[in-house]
Amino acid sequence: MTVDLFSDTQTRPTPGMREAMARAEVGDEQSGSDPTTNALCARVADLLGMEDAVFMPSGTMCNLAAILVQTRAGDEIIVDDQSHIYNTEAAGAAAIGGVSVRPLPTRNGLYTPEQAEAAIRAPQRTAPRSALISVEQTTSFSGGSIWELDTMRAIRDLARDRGLKAHIDGARLLNAVAATGIPARTYAEGFDSAWIDLSKGLGCPVGAVLCGTRDFVTEAWRWKYRLGGAMRQSGVLAAAGLYALDHHLDQLAEDNANARRLREGLEGAPGLAFEPEAGQSNILSFSVAGLGVPAAAFAEACRAQGVRVRAIGEQIRATTHLDVDRAGIARAVAVIRAQADAFARNPGSRRD
Amino acid sequence: MTVDLFSDTQTRPTPGMREAMARAEVGDEQSGSDPTTNALCARVADLLGMEDAVFMPSGTMCNLAAILVQTRAGDEIIVDDQSHIYNTEAAGAAAIGGVSVRPLPTRNGLYTPEQAEAAIRAPQRTAPRSALISVEQTTSFSGGSIWELDTMRAIRDLARDRGLKAHIDGARLLNAVAATGIPARTYAEGFDSAWIDLSKGLGCPVGAVLCGTRDFVTEAWRWKYRLGGAMRQSGVLAAAGLYALDHHLDQLAEDNANARRLREGLEGAPGLAFEPEAGQSNILSFSVAGLGVPAAAFAEACRAQGVRVRAIGEQIRATTHLDVDRAGIARAVAVIRAQADAFARNPGSRRD
Amino acid sequence: MTVDLFSDTQTRPTPGMREAMARAEVGDEQSGSDPTTNALCARVADLLGMEDAVFMPSGTMCNLAAILVQTRAGDEIIVDDQSHIYNTEAAGAAAIGGVSVRPLPTRNGLYTPEQAEAAIRAPQRTAPRSALISVEQTTSFSGGSIWELDTMRAIRDLARDRGLKAHIDGARLLNAVAATGIPARTYAEGFDSAWIDLSKGLGCPVGAVLCGTRDFVTEAWRWKYRLGGAMRQSGVLAAAGLYALDHHLDQLAEDNANARRLREGLEGAPGLAFEPEAGQSNILSFSVAGLGVPAAAFAEACRAQGVRVRAIGEQIRATTHLDVDRAGIARAVAVIRAQADAFARNPGSRRD
Amino acid sequence: MTVDLFSDTQTRPTPGMREAMARAEVGDEQSGSDPTTNALCARVADLLGMEDAVFMPSGTMCNLAAILVQTRAGDEIIVDDQSHIYNTEAAGAAAIGGVSVRPLPTRNGLYTPEQAEAAIRAPQRTAPRSALISVEQTTSFSGGSIWELDTMRAIRDLARDRGLKAHIDGARLLNAVAATGIPARTYAEGFDSAWIDLSKGLGCPVGAVLCGTRDFVTEAWRWKYRLGGAMRQSGVLAAAGLYALDHHLDQLAEDNANARRLREGLEGAPGLAFEPEAGQSNILSFSVAGLGVPAAAFAEACRAQGVRVRAIGEQIRATTHLDVDRAGIARAVAVIRAQADAFARNPGSRRD
Repeated sequence: MTVDLFSDTQTRPTPGMREAMARAEVGDEQSGSDPTTNALCARVADLLGMEDAVFMPSGTMCNLAAILVQTRAGDEIIVDDQSHIYNTEAAGAAAIGGVSVRPLPTRNGLYTPEQAEAAIRAPQRTAPRSALISVEQTTSFSGGSIWELDTMRAIRDLARDRGLKAHIDGARLLNAVAATGIPARTYAEGFDSAWIDLSKGLGCPVGAVLCGTRDFVTEAWRWKYRLGGAMRQSGVLAAAGLYALDHHLDQLAEDNANARRLREGLEGAPGLAFEPEAGQSNILSFSVAGLGVPAAAFAEACRAQGVRVRAIGEQIRATTHLDVDRAGIARAVAVIRAQADAFARNPGSRRD
Repeated sequence: MTVDLFSDTQTRPTPGMREAMARAEVGDEQSGSDPTTNALCARVADLLGMEDAVFMPSGTMCNLAAILVQTRAGDEIIVDDQSHIYNTEAAGAAAIGGVSVRPLPTRNGLYTPEQAEAAIRAPQRTAPRSALISVEQTTSFSGGSIWELDTMRAIRDLARDRGLKAHIDGARLLNAVAATGIPARTYAEGFDSAWIDLSKGLGCPVGAVLCGTRDFVTEAWRWKYRLGGAMRQSGVLAAAGLYALDHHLDQLAEDNANARRLREGLEGAPGLAFEPEAGQSNILSFSVAGLGVPAAAFAEACRAQGVRVRAIGEQIRATTHLDVDRAGIARAVAVIRAQADAFARNPGSRRD
Repeated sequence: MTVDLFSDTQTRPTPGMREAMARAEVGDEQSGSDPTTNALCARVADLLGMEDAVFMPSGTMCNLAAILVQTRAGDEIIVDDQSHIYNTEAAGAAAIGGVSVRPLPTRNGLYTPEQAEAAIRAPQRTAPRSALISVEQTTSFSGGSIWELDTMRAIRDLARDRGLKAHIDGARLLNAVAATGIPARTYAEGFDSAWIDLSKGLGCPVGAVLCGTRDFVTEAWRWKYRLGGAMRQSGVLAAAGLYALDHHLDQLAEDNANARRLREGLEGAPGLAFEPEAGQSNILSFSVAGLGVPAAAFAEACRAQGVRVRAIGEQIRATTHLDVDRAGIARAVAVIRAQADAFARNPGSRRD
Repeated sequence: MTVDLFSDTQTRPTPGMREAMARAEVGDEQSGSDPTTNALCARVADLLGMEDAVFMPSGTMCNLAAILVQTRAGDEIIVDDQSHIYNTEAAGAAAIGGVSVRPLPTRNGLYTPEQAEAAIRAPQRTAPRSALISVEQTTSFSGGSIWELDTMRAIRDLARDRGLKAHIDGARLLNAVAATGIPARTYAEGFDSAWIDLSKGLGCPVGAVLCGTRDFVTEAWRWKYRLGGAMRQSGVLAAAGLYALDHHLDQLAEDNANARRLREGLEGAPGLAFEPEAGQSNILSFSVAGLGVPAAAFAEACRAQGVRVRAIGEQIRATTHLDVDRAGIARAVAVIRAQADAFARNPGSRRD
């Protein structure tokens, strides 16, 4: 069987989770009468220390709704150049919100408060209006790097001082929590909006939860409805989220540990290069440029040996999650090393 | 226990449906590898005689995506003035697609081909471009009236002749099928896009399925993703849809029969007025204007007696579904008649 | 030479106006340093009793900016079904502002406060948010009908009570002023935004002036810039506007009188039908349906005899302005009557 | 009198230009019957070697319309990070077109074909669709640098190969022509859209002309109308444009020479630093960071001595144009050198 390190979105619900879904008490979420969805929202709002929350069909809708509520057409938002918002949301902020995106150049998704400050535009009629700044904790396309709490707070304070909203794309925020021991609500403190994904490391089939003030959530609900994200008896999905928060949080620490093990196992393999932050959480990115082989070809070679990783640009990205255990990691180490060795020995095989 | 005729969206999954969901084989729908979602899409595409289909979190997203794919900013779409698109989608077509809506005045949601033809604008730089025409089968806010097949086809042919796309909002299309015996694919033949809802009479917790050509579905998927409607292991929801198509289609005929029984039971009650089409499918609308009482007050009085109906403007709307059986209908008849009698006898109680 | 009654937009600058333009003192309007543009804005703001004003390249941009400033995506605006906003602005409100338009059915562009009240939606998440109501004084596509002051005020008060903005599309507001003697500032009193066109009856080549509060104008300027309407030494155009306000206001009364003369001259012609309000200001609409001839064919027949009128749907529209004098009107009467007589005598010639 | 080097947009029409405007033959541009506007469009289309052209109230509307016609919501356009489109159009591309902007990092507004190629996204559902690439010739906020013809052509060919549209923001294209002797039509050859501004070095009060294929111009006209940019007797403005093309082209070479003289006069002044390209056309940018004084303070000090320059970030920008002659340049050299000397001698005066 394949060791699937392609993404933590590939997780399948466990038997316990399925049973919780089958037993879920439900109602109509649109009239506020789905008790399980309500319980999940209360639980996540508490986890992030926010006033209120709304259940969404995806993390993409969380980012989009947070932008739509907190900006208006002609505004500009500040993100890192490797962010999900800038690269992997099909330009939704511009297409739906009329909002321009200002990507800050980074090596690993982590920009500095100084970069952020320089990117805030002076208010004038001819310029976009800087309206929101976003931090992606952890950085999805940059090897799962973890933002320092102090840096996040400096950015948050800058936003507040300059009249911008501060947002956390927390798709894998709980992986950072597991790695650092810093509570989610400490990370989120003072931010205007933040969300966590249920369908990544937490292993749920569908959903994410977006948090903010009560007024924010009222407006986010309006957009959720307009976008077509309002469901009916969503308790069947929310039950999986509650189950995951009860049973899968420890797993995130194990996922992080597996990424570290994977890195340790691969250090020293010929031609592989790691950024310092690689493997801080449940994502390990490394370059195969040293082998002179395209990343896509390297990934394909691993796949032929039963290990699925993802080629992103010049990088290989491996993501750990609850469907991959220590034995799987050991097998991944063996397969990836073997491919590195083979490409290193046999340059002739490198052409894609 | 309350007899809930507020809406067929209030249905809860049955034990059999829950079991089907718990057993569902799943994968990642975004990479096309959720087998249950794929099976549902194939099933509904076949039902409607369309090339391809996409699973959506709501019917609202089906309408929205169909509009977004088939128009561009500055276009105009033609609908009836009581339609869901015009009244109950939070202006999504304009807000997200930049599309103007042209509502045709109707008594019961059914406009004529002549009205449609007169509403298509001559092509000129200063006018919106007429781009799409929509038929809502059955009419949600107009008492569940059923469009004649010939009328739908005349509108479809008009659209084709004049270069517009033709769309079916089929939230309750299967109720029309149950009432007339005309297959869904016959209704949908030659239309460019059509969808059915799973979370109304079919009793599923979440979802709807949008159909069209393969190219249309490719673009609809692009918008689904951009809107935040792309999920992961959606097979848990799609399993409910497959179960409903296997087990609940007959129920729709029973729901229609119950609406007819409700009308028959209420005919002759003092102060209640019915349009000729009322009760054709699973929705019964009637006016309480003759009682001199606001519809909201009438609904509230019924609720106090254990029967929940919905006040929409001057009308009362009662919707039948699988959670209401014949005994419930009998009780609803008794309660509603009793309220009508009471208000008729005691005009002094009428003020809201 | 042709008597051109096609539109009052066809007017050409007079020698005096050209001289004023050639002599205009100019600067950069974007930095607020074009003295002639500033003077024009102050003059029009005073005329309408508003705090501030902005010069625009067209009346369409005035309507658009007023909508963009006073609404946000997903809002709905209320207009009459024959309005310029709904029919002749290429769906700009939806395309650019994401705003849905609710057209009220009217016979002549004049809706009632009761219609307006019924069109304001109850605030709920699923509905568009009613945000602005517009009155077009005079009604362009409805024969130049003049709104009663009391009706406009009832609509304005309704808007204020219900939290909507109230807007005047005053393309030909000064024609109403000339006809009724009611000052423009009296009409505009208490409205949130209003504008007049310079390039219609006033005879200027380019431009319109939009008024409102100082904050409104600040935001309107932002949109003017974003839309590409910010110019540089616009004083050359503004000088024409000032000249027109000094010299052409009396002409508007003469234009109105000419429209009345035209109606009087045509009354009783075979097959022509007039609405009661037709000819109240400088526009005369009449139906040629009684002749059994398409309006376009009737217009073409007139044109062949040297009189240019406009066919709009089933109607003929003739608009008076400063390039048409009493002699021109007399000739128009003769030609139009002759065509009516010819079509009435010879039904065989009627097919288009 | 002040020597105004703030911008070439500050030019005022000359007596000859005013006379041409006053004499202009006019008609209604919207019906294609303004002969002077038609002549100007034909003249500029020929100058750029394009099929057709449309007159616009501003260069901003030229960029905006070119984007709106050649993209759709969710697309991405590629520009340099100092471009007018990204920084000084109030996010119109996003706000109005739903288009995301991808800014390429540059030192002086000139990116490489390799940067452009790396910025084109692989086609996939989750990513914005790369749709258009723009070259700003000369670079407005980067000191008037001139693109090499070969570089522009490499970018154009890349666009064609990859299915993107190629656009020239030619606000000061004619300054590049004057500097290099390369004809405008040679620069524009094979591009899909291009425009020139009339109200910068050419000295007209209002306007710009956008060129492309006949189909492109038809759609650009549609957007011009929708944006509110459609005027009436615009021949009064177009006459200025024709006059400038007849009389002011030589002036652009003189403006370029004046910028060169200014640079030569300032070289060696203490604390001023010039990029190699500075002064290639009619814009000279230089840094005053070496003086330890904020650019805004330096500009203010010059202004107090009668020379107006513009502070942009850390840079001073001086722009030459027809209202500044050689004597003015000499005076500017003297004043700017004197300020540099003063700040260099007296560091204590440097705080803003």
